[in-house]
Amino acid sequence: MIKRKIEVCFSPALYQYFENKDAIVVIVDILRASSAICTAFMNGVSNIIPVATLEEAREYKNSGFLVAAERDGIVRDFADFGNSPFNFTSGRVMGKSIVYSTTNGTQSIRLASNSYKVIIGSFLNFSAINRYVTGEDRDVLIFCAGWKNKFNLEDTLYAGAMTDSLLSGDHFTTVCDSAHASQDLWNIAKDNLNGYVEKAAQRHRLKKNGLDDVMQYCHTFDLTDVIPVLKENFLVALK
Amino acid sequence: MIKRKIEVCFSPALYQYFENKDAIVVIVDILRASSAICTAFMNGVSNIIPVATLEEAREYKNSGFLVAAERDGIVRDFADFGNSPFNFTSGRVMGKSIVYSTTNGTQSIRLASNSYKVIIGSFLNFSAINRYVTGEDRDVLIFCAGWKNKFNLEDTLYAGAMTDSLLSGDHFTTVCDSAHASQDLWNIAKDNLNGYVEKAAQRHRLKKNGLDDVMQYCHTFDLTDVIPVLKENFLVALK
Repeated sequence: MIKRKIEVCFSPALYQYFENKDAIVVIVDILRASSAICTAFMNGVSNIIPVATLEEAREYKNSGFLVAAERDGIVRDFADFGNSPFNFTSGRVMGKSIVYSTTNGTQSIRLASNSYKVIIGSFLNFSAINRYVTGEDRDVLIFCAGWKNKFNLEDTLYAGAMTDSLLSGDHFTTVCDSAHASQDLWNIAKDNLNGYVEKAAQRHRLKKNGLDDVMQYCHTFDLTDVIPVLKENFLVALK
Repeated sequence: MIKRKIEVCFSPALYQYFENKDAIVVIVDILRASSAICTAFMNGVSNIIPVATLEEAREYKNSGFLVAAERDGIVRDFADFGNSPFNFTSGRVMGKSIVYSTTNGTQSIRLASNSYKVIIGSFLNFSAINRYVTGEDRDVLIFCAGWKNKFNLEDTLYAGAMTDSLLSGDHFTTVCDSAHASQDLWNIAKDNLNGYVEKAAQRHRLKKNGLDDVMQYCHTFDLTDVIPVLKENFLVALK
């Protein structure tokens, strides 16, 4: 059996060196975009339109859409709400279409958009993602959104957890140094995940803005089996 | 006392997000450019001219210079020798000027060239580097040359060893996720460094080309106190 490749890309600025049009690309932005998007689908959102710029988000708002938009953790004045997963309650999102723009996550979705499949990964749908990619005969690229093109710890830990899980089966292999590093960091952190991410720069940023109430939630495994997938310009639930 | 910052950049493609003109930049390309350059200075080379392209290297050769040049681990036909530290014997390099072009290392040197100081780090001059940066009142940026703009394990381990050493004193602090990750990976690897780097992609590349005889040497601590430093377009020994 030919094993499929796992690779991990640590930053949108490195994506061009990992681009693989035949791969399933798993977009990861744990604090907080991918956790928020998975929460929205868990709570019944109909679809999400990821947009890269605030200008696009504002235009959608002016056309009557519900808009989630922030930069650097701060909700924009024209938006209905920001990036916290706790905003995406079923009361607000059930059956609706939402426009979504964030600092790092939506840019990564756009970059990867010509791959075989672009799906959104978080700890919240961890096992569902792993089951899905195991069932498809495709390489996997775990694409960490990072922070303003820098490496970050929280996305890397997800990449490590996923690498560790996939390598424990028979279908995958890796010769990617980023995947090995992620896996090793995960194995340090896994017994005290919330303690380990205390040192992450994004933890400090969120705390400074009073937004760190989401830490434990964003590191919770398997609250949902829904997998958001990019279909043309929309994120929808994978059937 | 205001502590100085340690940051770690994992790739030339990320350098623009870390650029700090007031910092000491430590260029790291453990397998093999920075180990080879430190070996050359240990063995009395007068200076090294780092060049980014093979065309430049060939022009220098045509002008009578001694040239070390390779790509992807393969010595170029016009060059006198390639990238193995074992080529830079005192018999060959003592008192001489050498032109040096490699896949990753020289590009990084050029990128960082407008910083306060650009020095070349390897395990071979590990403690000398740490003493030097501790004595200067400057931030430190550890700049991993990586592999064709990808993250690599061996440069990261050096970055982690250096971060670990500097943070054990009173002068430095970090809020850089790459520095934290490097330090944690170093602490996994340090008791069996040669065993750990077995999984590095560059280890496989070198082995495939029969060039992996340098592994143990490149992970040897403190063979020299010489620190190569960039002065205009030359690397010279720091006085």
